[in-house]
Amino acid sequence: MLFTLGLSAQSIKSPNGNFNLTFELKDGVPVYQLSMGGEPIVKESKLGLELKDTPSLLGGFTIENTEESTFDETWQPVWGEVKDIRNHYNELAVTLNQKETARKMIIRFRVFDDGLGFRYEFPEQDNLIYFVIKEERTQFAMTGDHTAYWIPGDFDTQEYEYNTSKMSEIRALMAGAMRGNASTTTFSDTGVQTSLLLKTDNGTFINLHEAALIEYSCMHLELDDENMIFESYLTPDAVGNKGYMQAPRVTPWRTVIASKNAGDILMSHITLNLNEPCAYDDTSWIKPVKYVGVWWEMITGKSDWAYTSLPAVQLGKTDFSETTPSGRHGATTENVKRYIDFAAEHGFDAVLVEGWNEGWEDWIGKSKDYVFDFLTPYPDFDVDEVREYAKAKGVKMMMHHETSGAVRNYERHMDKAYQFMVDNGYNSVKSGYVGNIIPRGEHHYGQWLVNHYQYAVEKAAEYKIMVNAHEAVRPTGLSRTYPNLIANESARGTEYEAFVGTKAEHTTILPFTRLIGGPMDYTPGIFQTDISKINPDRDTFVHTTLARQLALYVTMYSPLQMAADLPEHYEQHMDAFQFIKDVAIDWDDTKVLEAEPGDFITYARKAKGTENWFVGRTNDEIGRTSKIKFDFLDADKKYIATIYSDAKDAHYETNPQAYEIKKVIVTSKSKLSQYCAPGGGYAISIMEVKDKSELKGLKRL
Amino acid sequence: MLFTLGLSAQSIKSPNGNFNLTFELKDGVPVYQLSMGGEPIVKESKLGLELKDTPSLLGGFTIENTEESTFDETWQPVWGEVKDIRNHYNELAVTLNQKETARKMIIRFRVFDDGLGFRYEFPEQDNLIYFVIKEERTQFAMTGDHTAYWIPGDFDTQEYEYNTSKMSEIRALMAGAMRGNASTTTFSDTGVQTSLLLKTDNGTFINLHEAALIEYSCMHLELDDENMIFESYLTPDAVGNKGYMQAPRVTPWRTVIASKNAGDILMSHITLNLNEPCAYDDTSWIKPVKYVGVWWEMITGKSDWAYTSLPAVQLGKTDFSETTPSGRHGATTENVKRYIDFAAEHGFDAVLVEGWNEGWEDWIGKSKDYVFDFLTPYPDFDVDEVREYAKAKGVKMMMHHETSGAVRNYERHMDKAYQFMVDNGYNSVKSGYVGNIIPRGEHHYGQWLVNHYQYAVEKAAEYKIMVNAHEAVRPTGLSRTYPNLIANESARGTEYEAFVGTKAEHTTILPFTRLIGGPMDYTPGIFQTDISKINPDRDTFVHTTLARQLALYVTMYSPLQMAADLPEHYEQHMDAFQFIKDVAIDWDDTKVLEAEPGDFITYARKAKGTENWFVGRTNDEIGRTSKIKFDFLDADKKYIATIYSDAKDAHYETNPQAYEIKKVIVTSKSKLSQYCAPGGGYAISIMEVKDKSELKGLKRL
Repeated sequence: MLFTLGLSAQSIKSPNGNFNLTFELKDGVPVYQLSMGGEPIVKESKLGLELKDTPSLLGGFTIENTEESTFDETWQPVWGEVKDIRNHYNELAVTLNQKETARKMIIRFRVFDDGLGFRYEFPEQDNLIYFVIKEERTQFAMTGDHTAYWIPGDFDTQEYEYNTSKMSEIRALMAGAMRGNASTTTFSDTGVQTSLLLKTDNGTFINLHEAALIEYSCMHLELDDENMIFESYLTPDAVGNKGYMQAPRVTPWRTVIASKNAGDILMSHITLNLNEPCAYDDTSWIKPVKYVGVWWEMITGKSDWAYTSLPAVQLGKTDFSETTPSGRHGATTENVKRYIDFAAEHGFDAVLVEGWNEGWEDWIGKSKDYVFDFLTPYPDFDVDEVREYAKAKGVKMMMHHETSGAVRNYERHMDKAYQFMVDNGYNSVKSGYVGNIIPRGEHHYGQWLVNHYQYAVEKAAEYKIMVNAHEAVRPTGLSRTYPNLIANESARGTEYEAFVGTKAEHTTILPFTRLIGGPMDYTPGIFQTDISKINPDRDTFVHTTLARQLALYVTMYSPLQMAADLPEHYEQHMDAFQFIKDVAIDWDDTKVLEAEPGDFITYARKAKGTENWFVGRTNDEIGRTSKIKFDFLDADKKYIATIYSDAKDAHYETNPQAYEIKKVIVTSKSKLSQYCAPGGGYAISIMEVKDKSELKGLKRL
Repeated sequence: MLFTLGLSAQSIKSPNGNFNLTFELKDGVPVYQLSMGGEPIVKESKLGLELKDTPSLLGGFTIENTEESTFDETWQPVWGEVKDIRNHYNELAVTLNQKETARKMIIRFRVFDDGLGFRYEFPEQDNLIYFVIKEERTQFAMTGDHTAYWIPGDFDTQEYEYNTSKMSEIRALMAGAMRGNASTTTFSDTGVQTSLLLKTDNGTFINLHEAALIEYSCMHLELDDENMIFESYLTPDAVGNKGYMQAPRVTPWRTVIASKNAGDILMSHITLNLNEPCAYDDTSWIKPVKYVGVWWEMITGKSDWAYTSLPAVQLGKTDFSETTPSGRHGATTENVKRYIDFAAEHGFDAVLVEGWNEGWEDWIGKSKDYVFDFLTPYPDFDVDEVREYAKAKGVKMMMHHETSGAVRNYERHMDKAYQFMVDNGYNSVKSGYVGNIIPRGEHHYGQWLVNHYQYAVEKAAEYKIMVNAHEAVRPTGLSRTYPNLIANESARGTEYEAFVGTKAEHTTILPFTRLIGGPMDYTPGIFQTDISKINPDRDTFVHTTLARQLALYVTMYSPLQMAADLPEHYEQHMDAFQFIKDVAIDWDDTKVLEAEPGDFITYARKAKGTENWFVGRTNDEIGRTSKIKFDFLDADKKYIATIYSDAKDAHYETNPQAYEIKKVIVTSKSKLSQYCAPGGGYAISIMEVKDKSELKGLKRL
């Protein structure tokens, strides 16, 4: 449908008619608004980009053309929360003409049954080829002073606890919200990161994020807290520019997910659906990973990454065979073999080793360029012996590439480092970017690093390597296109519990925010929450009950999951550990049974290719009773449910290890009313009954 | 010898006693001075470094230790101006102790018979490991308002004409001296680059430079024009820091060469001698190169680097086989074969091809990151056919890697690009860094890029590839250690004549300044100096006579020399071209016969492994008569000299192609009085007579 110059607004609805997107030009300025079931979600909001040294793309437009279309396709992810994902939307593409400069820009809107995605496109044209973005000016005008679940906007870290407050309170709370980190660069008293969760006074949930962040700068949101308008705030480069573009090019999608039902936010597939289909012909080498590793002992300070206590080393010059080992090195051949034994015994896919390679003595806080070579082991880590031992035990090794933020150094070594992995039985790598970025002046989330992370993932695919990137930009659904990007950290994970501790509610918020873009390597499974028991010099503790740690394998979706604790702690609680051994990491179906951000989330997930289900509940600092129905089960089947729950007197602070395990028979008619301790939760494995004999001695729930 | 705290100065002399270096602490501040034959060259000058976020290394020192030593060794360069180089110096190493911080610093002085080198060293120690340099504060206090031959200090280009003025006049002349360039960043009204030539009122020449610039930022000099003190001014990085250091580490050497004889400056080996010996076991693959190439036709605008006239392309997306060629592409298979034929016929080693690869449509001025892939040819350049043709003709191909300053992109492709060279018969590469550096904010001469240039050279050696780096940091003698760094441009070369023109005196200054650090790919040999004859849209001309172009092969020392003009211009003057064919590019001996910076230079050089000599004179814009003796020849031999000189009415502007050739007999007793036109000169090939019959019909000079 073609609308003539300056005339009425363009409108499209979602396939089910629930969402309505309106676009129009107001005095040549593009604006949009979004409503859901008649309720405004995004009020009139401006669109456009401010350019450097050339007229901006903010106004002076006329509509040259509009195109509407529909898309409806169901696709299967290589790994995921569900087997089939339906991508169904109505699309409106508006071609804008900026008369004075003879330039064109397209804004493409896709309206789904649970929200909206839109992006800017710069088609091939004479008058707009190379341009520099000074700032993107995409607004999200909110209809009121919503409750926000936010972390400070920061160009270099996302490792914050969430704050829950009215939007109007963000400014006053910002100073207290900012925390130290190996690399941190906040930018505004009202700047926040995405994905951002909001909840209106009348109980509507809204999520703002982006999808398909490629060759562009990561978007934060700056709040105009007088008018309650969020505006895009891109990450600058070393000289203050926000993006370098060459048309034809598209920006990432900006997404608005909305629902009255919190679970719908969690189950939205908008982010994945806005990404391109899988780019790889062969994905047979991409497999979910359940792993253990030499890591928590260093995080807790029980052992070290470094081999010696030298204050500094020089790769290729320091002869480690001549140095005096500190005796605290974690990644020794013997210790790693112990973990390999444990993994093999308990059915884990892989063993991660951190601290295996030269350079850990002075890896952090020195702005050291040639910090690692990713190839040279310490004298007490025998690459060959580990390789052969793991191979004989049927266990894969997981590589660790800490870069210390020195990305040129990483790229210089990357091919050899990946080949080293292939040669030695490492098919996945945990990469890290701890500390300020080198080249100095760049930020973790700027276009320069977004390009680098992508380069690392695509090159890894050439070697059939899966990548789990920590401290990288938070994901935006790119794993649909590049499924070897199997996870990121890119938020505050379990390690922070060992450093300083984290609020008990943290995992009741993360799925609404961080996980909207992709899975998180949260590294749960801590059974010994009192860190002083591991390292007397620490007085920190993990703000969780043991039962909730089991639940996290279900509530923190990831195809890559670590049983992070020391093996000896699992050996002390083999009955509880059984859940971690049993829990699947790839799913045919997922249901949200209960969800209130900041309070609790309960998921039920069906293990891929089976009739088995797993349920998990994570609970905040308030003791609560969870009430769920098992109506997701097949009506004609019986199941054995093993319920791992908090004891009545459990408490994340005072009595974390008090748990109960009971085995019961369940059917689709079953219901559960389960107490969850403060910082607690429960986990349930639900196995289809194949033989009646299994039911012997068990009662119905 | 150990001196007690605060006592008298330390002094060492050169081996021949001519130079005297004095070091002392003045109120804990290190100072030095240098005299030559009793005449002060450098007055009392401070030493030290200003550090960031930590106490500086500027004062508060005591002398902990001094060590004196002598070194005398003669070594042979892989290629050079002479066969043997004597490295003979007296050394003083002063260990300074900064009490308050318990830190040590060593200043090492080496005094040669023609000057001084000194550097800072930071030994391994507890209290000084990682540090950031805010500014190096090395002074060179001059004894008066000397004449300086200078170019503006600039973090991104050296492609300036030289200014000759009193030091006190630099400030007033700076604005006029600054010229446009694809990338230029000046920093001060009295900032100049090195190497800097000075001449005192009483005729003493002084050169200030640095040697062995590795893992450090390039040094400029800022002049305090009240006190006539030059001080080191390092190139900043994107965030304004000047260097990132990890002890143990040394800085580059700061050099002061001095003599009453201008020729001694030219013949000084201090820069090479201060560099480490050759790092390669095998150097058999490193050979001087005389080449022609598809280049001048693009520089003059006769043809293009690009294949099409598209305003922009995207590598991997633009299908060049579907585009419309402009018909102006220089690097076609046919054209290259023509050059290969010419090279084979006239005994040239190699043919350079520029514009062979996709990406030239939008290579400059766009800040384009993925600008070249260094692998993919345009449709009309057949890599295989060119390879086989060159091989059959016994000619090597010379690769071209223009990076457009996008150094991450170059490094990402470097291994494959070098392997491509090996696979296709290219054993040398001309690399380029035209335009502002990407990562943005970095400069061509900062530590980040110095590290990159070194990386490129060392990696090239793994592939047995020689590197000729244009727009890179000016050399500092590193080719002693890495002799595959066979040349740089890194100054204003012949191409500028085609762009705008260059003062006729330029090549009478360059050997005193730019060439002190290493050879220059000056690309001389232009026979048709009127560019409008090649491209009617240009009105520029080369400020030279034809005869002077021949001389440059002798006066502009380089193991890599181009006959840069179009073959058809050589074919019009085959008699003159004979000199270029005959001239050697590697030498057993070199003599400076006449030298006055800014006016003229005359060299005589002995071709390696022969008894043949070549003489060259370059002359400024004033007609002059050169008077030389041939007493460098063997007393017991006869030689045939072919003298290529300006005709009496030659003039670089009005009559450049008027030259004369005469063949005469010469001996060690011969003398020559030869007229040189404005912008002129002469070249002489002197061949040992092997058979008396050669003398028939010839007269004595």
